[in-house]
Amino acid sequence: MSNDAQASGEGIVTAALMVIGDEILSGRTKDKNIGYIADHLTAIGIQLKEVRVVPDEEAEIVAAVNALRARYTYVFTTGGIGPTHDDITADSIARAFGVGIDVDERALKPMLAYFEKRGVEVTPARLRMARIPFGAELVENSVSIAPGFMLGNVIVMAGIPSIMQVMLDAASRRLKTGKKMLSAALDLHRPEGEIAGPFAELQQRYPDVPMGSYPFQRDGKPGTQLVLRSTDPERLAAAEAELKSLLTARGWL
Amino acid sequence: MSNDAQASGEGIVTAALMVIGDEILSGRTKDKNIGYIADHLTAIGIQLKEVRVVPDEEAEIVAAVNALRARYTYVFTTGGIGPTHDDITADSIARAFGVGIDVDERALKPMLAYFEKRGVEVTPARLRMARIPFGAELVENSVSIAPGFMLGNVIVMAGIPSIMQVMLDAASRRLKTGKKMLSAALDLHRPEGEIAGPFAELQQRYPDVPMGSYPFQRDGKPGTQLVLRSTDPERLAAAEAELKSLLTARGWL
Repeated sequence: MSNDAQASGEGIVTAALMVIGDEILSGRTKDKNIGYIADHLTAIGIQLKEVRVVPDEEAEIVAAVNALRARYTYVFTTGGIGPTHDDITADSIARAFGVGIDVDERALKPMLAYFEKRGVEVTPARLRMARIPFGAELVENSVSIAPGFMLGNVIVMAGIPSIMQVMLDAASRRLKTGKKMLSAALDLHRPEGEIAGPFAELQQRYPDVPMGSYPFQRDGKPGTQLVLRSTDPERLAAAEAELKSLLTARGWL
Repeated sequence: MSNDAQASGEGIVTAALMVIGDEILSGRTKDKNIGYIADHLTAIGIQLKEVRVVPDEEAEIVAAVNALRARYTYVFTTGGIGPTHDDITADSIARAFGVGIDVDERALKPMLAYFEKRGVEVTPARLRMARIPFGAELVENSVSIAPGFMLGNVIVMAGIPSIMQVMLDAASRRLKTGKKMLSAALDLHRPEGEIAGPFAELQQRYPDVPMGSYPFQRDGKPGTQLVLRSTDPERLAAAEAELKSLLTARGWL
């Protein structure tokens, strides 16, 4: 695999995702954001290289974000920016960066207008959602107004999927993106164990085109999806052509 | 939150999960194992404290498993133990432990019998699935025979959900389990911002009972699920009773 080489290559933009929340780790809530964010980043030319799910504990959040932001172009977080005491993401990110945090007028004004229009009481808890680390840019929330933010290379988003998704769109507009990871997939109606040998040989001849093999069952019969990936369309096409002729020669296509 | 204190306490068993696979990070495959394993571990009295999704790269797998196995009672892995060249989990785990790896007679014999019975050709690729690190115990696979394994405190399982699930059952029988994390949940038909203040005060009086708040929308109206968690049934019941009387006093229950 040449992913690490690619990650340091020109035009390659990488990311990690931190999913913050005890409820994911206990199983009470099933994460719906990892797959969505993976698809989105792949589509816009950012390579997701790592995901961590961490509990609602400041020391854990600080350690993870500091490890990841040093290593990848961007770090996205989901969860922990609501009004209740277990929402500690904003404070934890401020701590990780060693900056202060307070209610931010840019966040507060539209929230107050939104609350007033809807007759929602302004509680100290709700004002917590306007707490933004010093130096951060806001990330717009067109669903429920209370914003996310971007501090350095860290993008902090809500955990509720519908809100996360509009924040991800808003944040994406200001991110640099790189070469898109392209892929080609072939469904083969043979079990994985038969194609493995020739597939491995093909991988050796194309070390810059990562190849994966994913078994499936269809109508009770085993099949294999072969996936080739590259940021270079010509190399991808060449590898795909060789794979097809290799399979055709065996009567498998 | 007192999770860290609890994690080091007597009778507490912790775990991390590593999901291994480029296909999860690219979005091509949507993970179905994290939520299942979280539920299973909670039910048997093992606290899942961290999840990492890592790519099919040996250095990444080695670094993650060595970080996690030093920190938690158990580390579970899913993915990367099939017959193809991108299945590098077994070799990576052997490398992480600094032990050798080779075809294991205990794994090979039932696999050969299974292949013969079904008329499946024995290919070098299929024999790869019998490669087990030295010193590991096998983890039975009643679905498709090729086993997982347990080396030290690391349990290596398949990525295909149906196979992972039988391996998890097989492995669980030999694991020590701890106090079960109990929980109580209350659905409140009020938005999170109203309950946040009194809920935070309750949390302060019960630092040993982690409390979480999860907003939801039902019939277009905002609601909040309040969740209390503890390994001590008496403390949980006391906190739940206080929460109920607090909500009743406000006319919210």
